[in-house]
Amino acid sequence: MMDNGGFCNDNYHSLSSDDELVDISDVTVDFSEDVPPLIRDYSVGRSKADWRLHNSPKLMDLMDDTVPGIGTYEDFNTIDWVREKSKDRDRHREITNKSKQSTLALLFSVSDAFSGWLLMLLIGLMSGALAGGIDIAAHWMTDLKEGVCLNGFWFNHEDCCWTSNETTFQERDKCPQWKSWAELMVGVNEGASAYVVSYFMYVCWALLFAFLAVTLVRAFAPYACGSGIPEIKTILSGFIIRGYLGKWTLIIKTITLVLAVSSGLSLGKEGPLVHVACCCANILCHFFTKYRRNEAKRREVLSAASAVGVSVAFGAPIGGVLFSLEEVSYYFPLKTLWRSFFAALVAAFTLRSINPFGNSRLVLFYVEFHTPWHFLELIPFIFLGIFGGFWGAFFIRANIAWCRLRKNSCLGHYPVLEVLLVTLITALLSFPNEYTRMSGSQLISELFNDCGLLDSSKICDYSGSRTGSVNDTVSNGLADRPAGPGLYTAMLLLALALVFKMFITVATFGMKVPSGLFIPSMAVGAIAGRLLGVGMEQLAIYHHDWNVFRRWCSPGADCITPGLYAMVGAAACLGGVTRMTVSLVVIMFELTGGLEYIVPLMAAAMTSKWVADALGREGIYEAHIRLNGYPFLEAKEEFRHKTLATDVMRPRPSGPPLSVLSQSGMTVEEVERLILDTTYSGFPVVISHQSQRLVGFVLRRDLVISLENARRHQEGVVSVSAVLFTECDPPASLNAVPAVKLHSILDLSPFTVTDHTPMEIVVDIFRKLGLRQCLVTQNGRLLGIITKKDVLKHMAQMANRDPDSILFN
Amino acid sequence: MMDNGGFCNDNYHSLSSDDELVDISDVTVDFSEDVPPLIRDYSVGRSKADWRLHNSPKLMDLMDDTVPGIGTYEDFNTIDWVREKSKDRDRHREITNKSKQSTLALLFSVSDAFSGWLLMLLIGLMSGALAGGIDIAAHWMTDLKEGVCLNGFWFNHEDCCWTSNETTFQERDKCPQWKSWAELMVGVNEGASAYVVSYFMYVCWALLFAFLAVTLVRAFAPYACGSGIPEIKTILSGFIIRGYLGKWTLIIKTITLVLAVSSGLSLGKEGPLVHVACCCANILCHFFTKYRRNEAKRREVLSAASAVGVSVAFGAPIGGVLFSLEEVSYYFPLKTLWRSFFAALVAAFTLRSINPFGNSRLVLFYVEFHTPWHFLELIPFIFLGIFGGFWGAFFIRANIAWCRLRKNSCLGHYPVLEVLLVTLITALLSFPNEYTRMSGSQLISELFNDCGLLDSSKICDYSGSRTGSVNDTVSNGLADRPAGPGLYTAMLLLALALVFKMFITVATFGMKVPSGLFIPSMAVGAIAGRLLGVGMEQLAIYHHDWNVFRRWCSPGADCITPGLYAMVGAAACLGGVTRMTVSLVVIMFELTGGLEYIVPLMAAAMTSKWVADALGREGIYEAHIRLNGYPFLEAKEEFRHKTLATDVMRPRPSGPPLSVLSQSGMTVEEVERLILDTTYSGFPVVISHQSQRLVGFVLRRDLVISLENARRHQEGVVSVSAVLFTECDPPASLNAVPAVKLHSILDLSPFTVTDHTPMEIVVDIFRKLGLRQCLVTQNGRLLGIITKKDVLKHMAQMANRDPDSILFN
Repeated sequence: MMDNGGFCNDNYHSLSSDDELVDISDVTVDFSEDVPPLIRDYSVGRSKADWRLHNSPKLMDLMDDTVPGIGTYEDFNTIDWVREKSKDRDRHREITNKSKQSTLALLFSVSDAFSGWLLMLLIGLMSGALAGGIDIAAHWMTDLKEGVCLNGFWFNHEDCCWTSNETTFQERDKCPQWKSWAELMVGVNEGASAYVVSYFMYVCWALLFAFLAVTLVRAFAPYACGSGIPEIKTILSGFIIRGYLGKWTLIIKTITLVLAVSSGLSLGKEGPLVHVACCCANILCHFFTKYRRNEAKRREVLSAASAVGVSVAFGAPIGGVLFSLEEVSYYFPLKTLWRSFFAALVAAFTLRSINPFGNSRLVLFYVEFHTPWHFLELIPFIFLGIFGGFWGAFFIRANIAWCRLRKNSCLGHYPVLEVLLVTLITALLSFPNEYTRMSGSQLISELFNDCGLLDSSKICDYSGSRTGSVNDTVSNGLADRPAGPGLYTAMLLLALALVFKMFITVATFGMKVPSGLFIPSMAVGAIAGRLLGVGMEQLAIYHHDWNVFRRWCSPGADCITPGLYAMVGAAACLGGVTRMTVSLVVIMFELTGGLEYIVPLMAAAMTSKWVADALGREGIYEAHIRLNGYPFLEAKEEFRHKTLATDVMRPRPSGPPLSVLSQSGMTVEEVERLILDTTYSGFPVVISHQSQRLVGFVLRRDLVISLENARRHQEGVVSVSAVLFTECDPPASLNAVPAVKLHSILDLSPFTVTDHTPMEIVVDIFRKLGLRQCLVTQNGRLLGIITKKDVLKHMAQMANRDPDSILFN
Repeated sequence: MMDNGGFCNDNYHSLSSDDELVDISDVTVDFSEDVPPLIRDYSVGRSKADWRLHNSPKLMDLMDDTVPGIGTYEDFNTIDWVREKSKDRDRHREITNKSKQSTLALLFSVSDAFSGWLLMLLIGLMSGALAGGIDIAAHWMTDLKEGVCLNGFWFNHEDCCWTSNETTFQERDKCPQWKSWAELMVGVNEGASAYVVSYFMYVCWALLFAFLAVTLVRAFAPYACGSGIPEIKTILSGFIIRGYLGKWTLIIKTITLVLAVSSGLSLGKEGPLVHVACCCANILCHFFTKYRRNEAKRREVLSAASAVGVSVAFGAPIGGVLFSLEEVSYYFPLKTLWRSFFAALVAAFTLRSINPFGNSRLVLFYVEFHTPWHFLELIPFIFLGIFGGFWGAFFIRANIAWCRLRKNSCLGHYPVLEVLLVTLITALLSFPNEYTRMSGSQLISELFNDCGLLDSSKICDYSGSRTGSVNDTVSNGLADRPAGPGLYTAMLLLALALVFKMFITVATFGMKVPSGLFIPSMAVGAIAGRLLGVGMEQLAIYHHDWNVFRRWCSPGADCITPGLYAMVGAAACLGGVTRMTVSLVVIMFELTGGLEYIVPLMAAAMTSKWVADALGREGIYEAHIRLNGYPFLEAKEEFRHKTLATDVMRPRPSGPPLSVLSQSGMTVEEVERLILDTTYSGFPVVISHQSQRLVGFVLRRDLVISLENARRHQEGVVSVSAVLFTECDPPASLNAVPAVKLHSILDLSPFTVTDHTPMEIVVDIFRKLGLRQCLVTQNGRLLGIITKKDVLKHMAQMANRDPDSILFN
């Protein structure tokens, strides 16, 4: 019964220990040109700098791979987390061992240990600086649509008047140095002709900015479009998209983000900032061998970078870390938590020292009021949550339908035209309404604001607030007052803006320009919240004798804060679209800096998530991941169907049999034919085809490279040479031609499950261990194989979706 | 070659589907008395209420287990996470399926979905209320050591004088209704005799409280001692300690915690509050079938409860959640994150509405200053971090050595005496020094405080602050001033208090009373920080012409805040002892409510962790877990040794062979003998002893219960009856006596790894999937088994520790 099949047992070797890689190690250098350029590009293979590093100091050769290309991945493929982590552990082990031998090695080991922290510092500094630059540039270019500064065209409106001496405190925005386009062209600032000129210039600039953005993206970095978060989620889960986080993407995304935001389109810079931070991280990783060479370690850094992105986008370092943990990351060890936090803080402080908004804050819409709220107000807050949930579900469905239409119709062939068209419509419709004309974050800032005594904006136009004498006003304090005519106009405009924003955002998100949806979503919610808040306020004023109001709203008291409603609405809508929970509440908490409003925010976020989940399980990012067919194994949702591994594995009962290699009975030609005939990314190795008893697993890529290498550099290898996956020498009879020994590329510890294993457990294993594939055995005999793609297809099928929507391995 | 050995293949059954449990399902009721009482006690088995629930409504029988006791665990054993999660998924699936059939079932399914949230709400309310009660009671009893209120003995000092009309704002603490013991006994409040009486009464009360605490703990709930966090960590990792989170523990821990804190011992209530919250959670779990019956689900709730504990201890809900995530939890899905946050918030708001400190804050030591800090101050902050690291390492070593001494010497036999002795020493030494006489949190509160104009305490005694006229003082503002004589005395006393606290805390933590070490650690750090801060302040005043000070410390400016130094020191020392990182910074951030001090705190926490890690890898909780020999698989540290599964598995080369069951060839007697002869907690089932090809795994406990059940209730079962793990009927020849069919208790999907799998991957699998055991195969043949205990022993051995220190399975 005991068929050992020529496989000799040895006691001590692991996945990639050096001493076992010797058999083909005599050739290392001239193979590098055979590696496809893509690999060299993406830092897994060897760049030039890498080679230099690799060949000069003695220290580096402890990480020497034998055949270049082995252990790397192809584009649009999934990495093997277990292997990557093993590689890193091997590396660490060898550094530790060497560090006992010499002082230089000890120093190297210490610098290696601290390189992670240094990298985090650099990412924080770089991302903070870039975010500050983007803020300043976008501010200037947004103002450029209105007019220009005579003191220097590079000043924005505020800076222009700030440097001028002729402004008063009351009218900070008006100064002779700042000329609107109307003033420059027709000489007047008021009247119909001025309006027409301003309108025209506004539309022209918007079109120019949008055109530049979309052409730059198309010409230099197609990956720079969109928000980038769906792709980053997929990359973090172990997928490879070469160039997605490269330097061109970074440069073009930064420039076009400024252009897109300035063009007045309904989009935000917050999501793309995450992409920008990840690009920074990826580029900086190139300077640290530890991270350049290891896909798993690099993903830890990228997780931290996404925390950095949110940290600078909202000025919320803790919220950013939780966002990364909750929304983006896949593998997030505690070490990364601490480092992310560090990087997020560095970035926030870098941004603060740049001070792009001139208010020592990191965001435009910081909230400064601390008025209390009443328990009964939870009812409108929950109502806002319901609104947010409905809006989220509507937005996701409409946006996905629109994107699908774009993909499947001729619309997709004219991205530039589409962008210009949407920009034209946006600009034409938004200029007449001051609340759509201003930028998204300005609008949110205004809506979050609690009306002070000196506020001159329309939404603060309460009767009695400016007509009465100063004394009157002071005695009234900040009490709730009846609305004035300006407020009614403002409400009407806001209602129009709400409808406009809701529809135009659907068309905007997904176009070929960088576009985030945090700000548009929050704007929708903030408008809805402000409308409801003002409504409640007026209700309380006119009906303060109602039972509900009598207790907390005596006349002359400040009992309802419309700004708080706007904030709650913004949180609810953002929650509905993205399905964030803790991170959302923490981000909003950091915007307000107090625990006061955490209960309203939480009530709204919770309601919104429940409502939105009831209408459709997935958030906008998951929906886009699915739309693109990325192989993303969602960690949040549990697989609850009662299928077994045997139902999912290949070979299917009707399909072709499983392609396996036998450990010693095959020739080079047979193996090569198998490779040519199939497209599988790996093959199980068994003792013999007859017994089907599993020995290990070999990856197609490693096999191809090794065979080519052997054919080229190993003497006497011909088509009939035996391919040996065993460690011991072949029997004497076969010794006529030298055999190709491939024991070193064989993974001797493939993951196996039995055919009776429930799929829920298999899914859990894939998720938690980050597998690429898993072998299925029955009573010790190899039955089949399950790949990540199989799992995803099966999950899609069980959820009544099209299994062929999963495109990649 | 194909030996199927009588095992017939069917296509569709999972671990615990109901239809396969029918073969012994005719007997369910009268078996319950055979289950050991412990099991019934600890909510996994059936309590009486459970039985009632179970037998009356139709809805409940969808979770019917067939033989009671199957699928439960013994005390001091590790749970199987995979099995528990499978059970929960089965349960959920059945509820979902039923919910389509009737409205009642639909309602049940909805209530089931929301029961998690309801449970969180209840935990938050209960823990918040208990924490408030503990705060109030401890406050009152601490004051009782000084004196008593004549208006009613139940008033504490502050409330007593608050209700009195005769107090002025300046001397709120003095009122005729409050009588110190000296005043009551010898009639005077000053002088030697009064001092002696006060001293005597102080010591007496302290001894009384300590005596009560230790006797209550010993008499009713031995598990109530200590901080509880090491055990909770172990429980959350999947260990079972029955009664550790029971109602008696809760009651006794709550009472004795108040007593211990009031006795003036150097301990805090913060750690034990985590234990209290977990007890609440565990008790409340009994009311929800979903959580009562499932060990994995219950642990999710317990993770949330530990967040609640920290939330009420420090008034830091976000910090609490991160503490649970970083420090305590093992399996922390995102759903739990959101629920923890909810529960933590509910608890914080409950506590705030109780308002135990009368300041609308959740803690005594809330920080209210927002003065800026200078970049150069990072040097002293980092110095504090180094101090914290050294203190942490010293404390852990000294405390572990002391606990080991207690364990191994006769000291351990007299816990009451030990407590009384330590209390006596503490009371005798602490009364003369006002900074040790006050409670830990009061001391911290005073040290964190920035000296205002009206502060009359000694540490705010700066020259010129009270001698000058009011005008002078105002013109000086809050500028740094030279120290007055009171400040010098205070510094001396603080230095003495520092030395005292450092040593007495080592002896206190680990005694048989509830004791947390957050407060003592923070107190040590706060004293050190304040000393350094005052030192820096005076240095800057006397040497403001030094280059370093000239830029930021002009005379008359407020440039150094000693309170900030105290805060940074507290964070550093707490970090050194517990090795918390993110959660520590976030807790401190929530105490201050601003981002200003996050960089100093982070610098100190980071330095402290690095220094402490360099001196000893593990925090105090891990050290105590190891001291107690709990089977805790640390998630933070990576296993970096190069061993293989084959080196760790049993049977060892020299040991007895592996005990396996064959799937159809054994009789009841043979199986029973195997059970009697071995102590293993489970047995692999193979096709035949000869082929060693793996079929599944069966747990000892399930096997014992099933065999007993069959012997008792199945007709015709005798010693020679065959035991069948196959599903098909036995061959006719064996049909003379009925066979015992045990297919239903067989786990058909045991986890397997190959013998060549590196141990680092095996450790990872154990950690991530929460396994109890894993089978080792070679080329499809069963070779051995690795249990969690084997893994832990191996890890201990590789770290040059005693492998026999791991006591439990």
